Amino acid sequence: MGLEILGQVAAFGGQQGVYQHSSSSTGTEMTFSVYVPPHENGSKLPVIWYLSGLTCTHANVTEKGEFRRTCSELGLIFIAPDTSPRGNGVPDDDAYDFGQGAGFYVDATEGPWSEHFQMRTYIEDELPGLIADNFPADMSRQGITGHSMGGHGALTIALHNPERFKSVSAFAPIASPLNCPWGHKALSGYLGPDRQKWRAYDACALIEDGQRVPNILVDQGMADGFLAEQLKPELLEETCKAAAQPLTLRRQHGYDHSYYFISTFMDDHLRWHAERLGR
Amino acid sequence: MGLEILGQVAAFGGQQGVYQHSSSSTGTEMTFSVYVPPHENGSKLPVIWYLSGLTCTHANVTEKGEFRRTCSELGLIFIAPDTSPRGNGVPDDDAYDFGQGAGFYVDATEGPWSEHFQMRTYIEDELPGLIADNFPADMSRQGITGHSMGGHGALTIALHNPERFKSVSAFAPIASPLNCPWGHKALSGYLGPDRQKWRAYDACALIEDGQRVPNILVDQGMADGFLAEQLKPELLEETCKAAAQPLTLRRQHGYDHSYYFISTFMDDHLRWHAERLGR
Repeated sequence: MGLEILGQVAAFGGQQGVYQHSSSSTGTEMTFSVYVPPHENGSKLPVIWYLSGLTCTHANVTEKGEFRRTCSELGLIFIAPDTSPRGNGVPDDDAYDFGQGAGFYVDATEGPWSEHFQMRTYIEDELPGLIADNFPADMSRQGITGHSMGGHGALTIALHNPERFKSVSAFAPIASPLNCPWGHKALSGYLGPDRQKWRAYDACALIEDGQRVPNILVDQGMADGFLAEQLKPELLEETCKAAAQPLTLRRQHGYDHSYYFISTFMDDHLRWHAERLGR
Repeated sequence: MGLEILGQVAAFGGQQGVYQHSSSSTGTEMTFSVYVPPHENGSKLPVIWYLSGLTCTHANVTEKGEFRRTCSELGLIFIAPDTSPRGNGVPDDDAYDFGQGAGFYVDATEGPWSEHFQMRTYIEDELPGLIADNFPADMSRQGITGHSMGGHGALTIALHNPERFKSVSAFAPIASPLNCPWGHKALSGYLGPDRQKWRAYDACALIEDGQRVPNILVDQGMADGFLAEQLKPELLEETCKAAAQPLTLRRQHGYDHSYYFISTFMDDHLRWHAERLGR
């Protein structure tokens, strides 16, 4: 699998890179960023996956996430994929919350989306192989996190793959796409009207259906404009409590949905993951 | 003097704000950002001024500078002004290195620039009054830094005002506008052909002419594409040595001119300033 280097720059003693490759999952060129901290030649480092939110590319967290200092301190590789396939020939929607930039980390089954919108397979199967082949990554030590739509992605992908991810966290995740307008629109569009099929892409439903991870850390800003209608952390809290799924939900007063919120708590999340990944 | 709040968000326990006001210096609306860290009611905090480089607004460092964590730890207010007047009725140039976004922190004397391009007066006289009136700032404890064109601005404004600034540093500054293409273009355009007038806006010339500050910290990336033709830190090094002006010039191997470089060394600069501002 070939990897094109779009950019590599020095930062915090390591290297921030942006890469592109031809994806067999999406049938498009896909872009992602990887930060590799300073490390001894030949050593392999644990990996943190960061899944971004609606409208984002790899660039938002790469520029504004403030993760590099602590990744260098703790020796963590940080990977930021794109949020959907893009480009000519890829279907799109005028809305910000559907189509390009809004893949929701699902494998679409409905036309015209199913041809390219295979983001679950891309994140679960294809990109890990590319990372293992091209970076000094210890694939036996992976953690996953994400923001908003990407928080939903991190939770659902971790719940599907508890053997792969030793740690999972989220920033202001969509707690239950089955129970919010963003989720209804995306899952009906990508998967069709059968709500039973949506349950594979709903963290609360997955936990209800028996999936488990060792622990979950969630930070949620209480001044987040999407809190009441879209994010609903109380649904995750109730579901985890009923299922005895360990959850640390921190309600952060005064914080909104932006990268000012994410960057503030990024350090806590990286340390949470590092503890569980044996750093 | 009225101050319009364009945005205020929680970050790192403090508040990141963006503000606009009608400037008497430039005759335009001017935008700037201020980070106020958590502090006790009624206390006053030292101030760090950050002057940005060509093409930037307040937003670049505000989003990518990674200064808030350490400003919260050390109790520093961080101010990021714009790099020029902007808007309809303000003259501009198609080039990225002259006109709007490229004020060079000078008071222009040549038409059509002199009406609005009064950035030295804006930074030296007008904005400090606004800060003192509207924020919990201890104006007896100010430090100044900047990047590239803004590093030139920080050095020259500090050398003109050694009683005001207790500390001065720069990231990849234009060391001597008298001796590089960016400087020739800007200073001839804003000040006319008499090079004697340019000396007030050249850090090396100011030091040669007797101006002094207690110490200067400069970081310069050695993979910076502008190093040899535009930045020329060796000129500052030679001038400081000849004049016995204390300078700590650090050549950082592998680093470029971007915010990946700036954010890497921002923490060192903030600690340098804080030591000299009595934090």
